[in-house]
Amino acid sequence: MQRICVDMDEVMADTLAEHLRRYNETFDESVSVDELTGKALWEVTPADRQAQLRAFLDAEDFFEDLALMPGAQEVLKHLTQRFDVYIATQAMTVPNSLGPKYRWLQRHFPFIPPTNYVFCGNKCILRADYLIDDLPRNLQRFEGKGLLYSAPHNLAATGYTRVNNWQDVADFFAKVKA
Amino acid sequence: MQRICVDMDEVMADTLAEHLRRYNETFDESVSVDELTGKALWEVTPADRQAQLRAFLDAEDFFEDLALMPGAQEVLKHLTQRFDVYIATQAMTVPNSLGPKYRWLQRHFPFIPPTNYVFCGNKCILRADYLIDDLPRNLQRFEGKGLLYSAPHNLAATGYTRVNNWQDVADFFAKVKA
Repeated sequence: MQRICVDMDEVMADTLAEHLRRYNETFDESVSVDELTGKALWEVTPADRQAQLRAFLDAEDFFEDLALMPGAQEVLKHLTQRFDVYIATQAMTVPNSLGPKYRWLQRHFPFIPPTNYVFCGNKCILRADYLIDDLPRNLQRFEGKGLLYSAPHNLAATGYTRVNNWQDVADFFAKVKA
Repeated sequence: MQRICVDMDEVMADTLAEHLRRYNETFDESVSVDELTGKALWEVTPADRQAQLRAFLDAEDFFEDLALMPGAQEVLKHLTQRFDVYIATQAMTVPNSLGPKYRWLQRHFPFIPPTNYVFCGNKCILRADYLIDDLPRNLQRFEGKGLLYSAPHNLAATGYTRVNNWQDVADFFAKVKA
């Protein structure tokens, strides 16, 4: 059975929406997703707020209640019937996210066993046929076939097989022989 | 640069010693390591104590202060100069171990960056040239070259390249072209 690794932040979970919500609330701003095309939040905010931007991620509750990306549950449930699905998330730069990410996955994706979770840093370590990820550098390090999941920051990236949403993921794998 | 994955429990950390210490203290017993040749602790203890045996591992502090296996620090420090060293530990069956394991690694192995930690379940997911592990089933699932790190429970296992201690690990890799 072929193996698919799936990134969490901005692929399964809408991490950016929560980051933006906390930023706007704290600084009484109204930065929208539309302003982030081709850019990370770090790049459109003042230098003296970078420490706070990082602190939002380090908060114990940040990763606890992230919204689901539309269709992620349904499509992944379907894919687990034909593929060996692993969750591969970069958790090591934010150690406070370890527990919350584990609980979030159990709550929203009970059909994927915890033995298929991989909390890692450098994704070169993954042995899989496919990786769905929003970060071009993760796909570059991965030795299998990468699928770039569209996010505002990566909209200008070229040279990748791109999926814009979970329906695109479903369509891609419908054509793959498991 | 070739990549080595290293298991934590019973390879870098003396998990068994702490498990045994808590068991003996709680039940006023004196089970020794010598009695565990070819067997796991679960197999030599009464059925009505299995839940407590598991509860020891789930305790928030269990993985926080494990003793180091002799030589692990020195040999790994040396190996990081010639190899790409990753820590690959099965943490997902004991979610309370995630934070403690992270802190333990940072404290005792500061020369290995957190981006090289992999907290996983099934070790088939690892893409590496070597895996040092005390569990035969982990080596069976791994696609690179496995080294069985001797532990009481695996002393009867055959068909593996065995390392009895960290000096054996150093000797093995001294002969490997990095």
